[in-house]
Amino acid sequence: MIKLMRYSQLYTKTTKNVPADADSANARYLEQGGFIHREMAGVYSYLPLGLRVLRKIDNIIREEMNAIGGQEILMPALSPKENWMKTGRWDGLDVLFKLPAAGGKEYALGATHEEVVTPLVQDHVFSYKDLPMSVYQIQTKFRNELRAKSGILRGREFGMKDLYSFDKTEEELDEFYEKAKVAYTNVFKRVGFKPEDTYLTFASGGTFSKYSHEYQIAAGVGEDLIYTCDKCVVAVNKEIIEDQDSCPECGNKNLTEKNGIEVGNIFKLKTKYSEPFGFKFTDEDGTTKPVIMGCYGIGNTRLMGSLVEVFHDERGIIWPKNVSPYFVHLIVVKGDENAEKEAEKLYKDLEKEGIEVFFDDRDERPGAKFADADLMGMPLRLVVSKRTLESDSVEWKLRPEAEGENVPLKDVVKKVKALYKED
Amino acid sequence: MIKLMRYSQLYTKTTKNVPADADSANARYLEQGGFIHREMAGVYSYLPLGLRVLRKIDNIIREEMNAIGGQEILMPALSPKENWMKTGRWDGLDVLFKLPAAGGKEYALGATHEEVVTPLVQDHVFSYKDLPMSVYQIQTKFRNELRAKSGILRGREFGMKDLYSFDKTEEELDEFYEKAKVAYTNVFKRVGFKPEDTYLTFASGGTFSKYSHEYQIAAGVGEDLIYTCDKCVVAVNKEIIEDQDSCPECGNKNLTEKNGIEVGNIFKLKTKYSEPFGFKFTDEDGTTKPVIMGCYGIGNTRLMGSLVEVFHDERGIIWPKNVSPYFVHLIVVKGDENAEKEAEKLYKDLEKEGIEVFFDDRDERPGAKFADADLMGMPLRLVVSKRTLESDSVEWKLRPEAEGENVPLKDVVKKVKALYKED
Repeated sequence: MIKLMRYSQLYTKTTKNVPADADSANARYLEQGGFIHREMAGVYSYLPLGLRVLRKIDNIIREEMNAIGGQEILMPALSPKENWMKTGRWDGLDVLFKLPAAGGKEYALGATHEEVVTPLVQDHVFSYKDLPMSVYQIQTKFRNELRAKSGILRGREFGMKDLYSFDKTEEELDEFYEKAKVAYTNVFKRVGFKPEDTYLTFASGGTFSKYSHEYQIAAGVGEDLIYTCDKCVVAVNKEIIEDQDSCPECGNKNLTEKNGIEVGNIFKLKTKYSEPFGFKFTDEDGTTKPVIMGCYGIGNTRLMGSLVEVFHDERGIIWPKNVSPYFVHLIVVKGDENAEKEAEKLYKDLEKEGIEVFFDDRDERPGAKFADADLMGMPLRLVVSKRTLESDSVEWKLRPEAEGENVPLKDVVKKVKALYKED
Repeated sequence: MIKLMRYSQLYTKTTKNVPADADSANARYLEQGGFIHREMAGVYSYLPLGLRVLRKIDNIIREEMNAIGGQEILMPALSPKENWMKTGRWDGLDVLFKLPAAGGKEYALGATHEEVVTPLVQDHVFSYKDLPMSVYQIQTKFRNELRAKSGILRGREFGMKDLYSFDKTEEELDEFYEKAKVAYTNVFKRVGFKPEDTYLTFASGGTFSKYSHEYQIAAGVGEDLIYTCDKCVVAVNKEIIEDQDSCPECGNKNLTEKNGIEVGNIFKLKTKYSEPFGFKFTDEDGTTKPVIMGCYGIGNTRLMGSLVEVFHDERGIIWPKNVSPYFVHLIVVKGDENAEKEAEKLYKDLEKEGIEVFFDDRDERPGAKFADADLMGMPLRLVVSKRTLESDSVEWKLRPEAEGENVPLKDVVKKVKALYKED
């Protein structure tokens, strides 16, 4: 990824106008900040700054999926109707887009990929020696939602990381499932959510398992209701609380209702998809057995939206460091030759240290530049002006803070480096 | 990208069976080598090795597009029918997929993105100060082809880099167009095509320009016919040769018919799309003028297929270094403790030097391992066996060569490094 960007070169502009249809903080601030562009309800483009955030999220997810042995692949959006007829989801999945094609054919437009990944893996995996294994992709999904809402939280076209595990036995699946939990916890922590707000939430397991699990971020703005256990940092969702009034982990009946945003889910599919495709393996003793499957989803675009829902104030976004498009938002107050020279020098000095810098070098008044910095939400704002240079310093302000402080010009690069490396 | 892979951990397997429907070298070898998986005619999945090749191609394209000032964005596949009605392509573009959606709506599934990018850029670009500019994406395209063919060369779902330029005047467009030509030439050279086989080919310009340009790789296997000028390394396509019998650059009438594979195209759109969307800018003198556009396409998946068409022999693929999934294909002949120890050591030593290594550590007979190395086509094969260790050496073989040579064990890492850095 390119480390540097001059605002004068970036084609997008912020706007003070709140989009008329913005029903959520993410729809509002991501559009106003020039991160995304609404094509139609539930369908967005990712503009240069937004795509950077998305790619940073993707890379974190990718590293954690690789760490648990996931092999990255890329499946298509189009798939044959037959596959969906086999599992009953051609008619059973109401959000499935059905696409009429040349030659009188019909394709499904992938809303999820069990119907594609199962026969795909079946073509290479035959024996107990080939198992356990898992594959994942970061790819675009399509859902024919009657009503899309909440910006990039619930769309008709959205990005998703979907991992599928293949095991010999339910015990092996249980083992991988626990590993996936750890990877998921890592992802949510690394993108910036507080571990104490990230709830492993018990949800319905469908026909094959007692429970599946959602990851819910407790946040006032969340659309879901969850019931959290204060003893073991787990929660149950609304569906489960209607059947039982205690924590499934420790039996604690003292549950607290909170708002939550779902950011991921994991599910033991067992033989739900391997059976209809006849996906079996030959075990060590020569017998054939159905492969045991699990699926593990994180919506990368939804995660980006959720971060904005949790991390914003009335002035704009407050990006966590690991997913911010750039680390430093450097502002020069124009009109003073020396300030312009020193700002250019600082920009280059930070570049040498490998710091990602967004440089507002435009001919704009300072107030507009400060408002943009607040709206765009990068972690550290540095201002170089005639006034700061009078005390040989730079104004240093972390995004959530109201007031900046002066830092000596000679120390600023070292101080930025230290903050950049801090956990 | 992860630098190392053990074959024993990779879930895909090669196969000796030629796919029944393989009508081309890329369909055959990419499937046999476990790079891609055919979902249905014209629709493929990219498996771990294939996805690595594709991402390397993407990164080369991305670097060259960034170098000419292209700003990367990501547009959706779904777009509203209205946009396509405005340009007449809802009915005029025969390969456009039309998707019925909830609420009685209809969407287009992006076959190309002029109808999306024009109003998208229009929302941020208003004045002469905002121009010239260009945006690009690497994204999935859909085309409702009656007959898909030639593996990943002509599919119903495929990857594409599409860049769009926006200028104030035709002269500014001409200037950017020349820059794009240089970037394209760089891309084709960097992925591995020989510059002397890469022809800038004159094609029809449609209503708005005399010519557009295709990039054609001269290759016996190419589907297109091109007519090359031996004086200026340009060519004309079949459409043009029917109207004129001379080189458009130098007037040379001595043209040679060759087979070509189209790997990219560039096109001056001028006001074809800015007019229907009313995309105008305010010029320095206060007048409003239509924005002048150009479009520049490279199919990244098609490029991958083209590389296999050009670089293969009867044993398999011969990947150019910059796009090979790994640089070294390290083979250990199993059964000898010392050979296994030395191979593991070499694997780790190469890792320390940052070399990308694919390590065939499976319990397979040597003949099968050698056949796989030829099929998978990585540039350098190293073999460690009891026999090579008798002379304290490793067998070293470049993929296109028939015979290997022994290289002293103590020199091999240094020699690999030198070859890796070579241009």
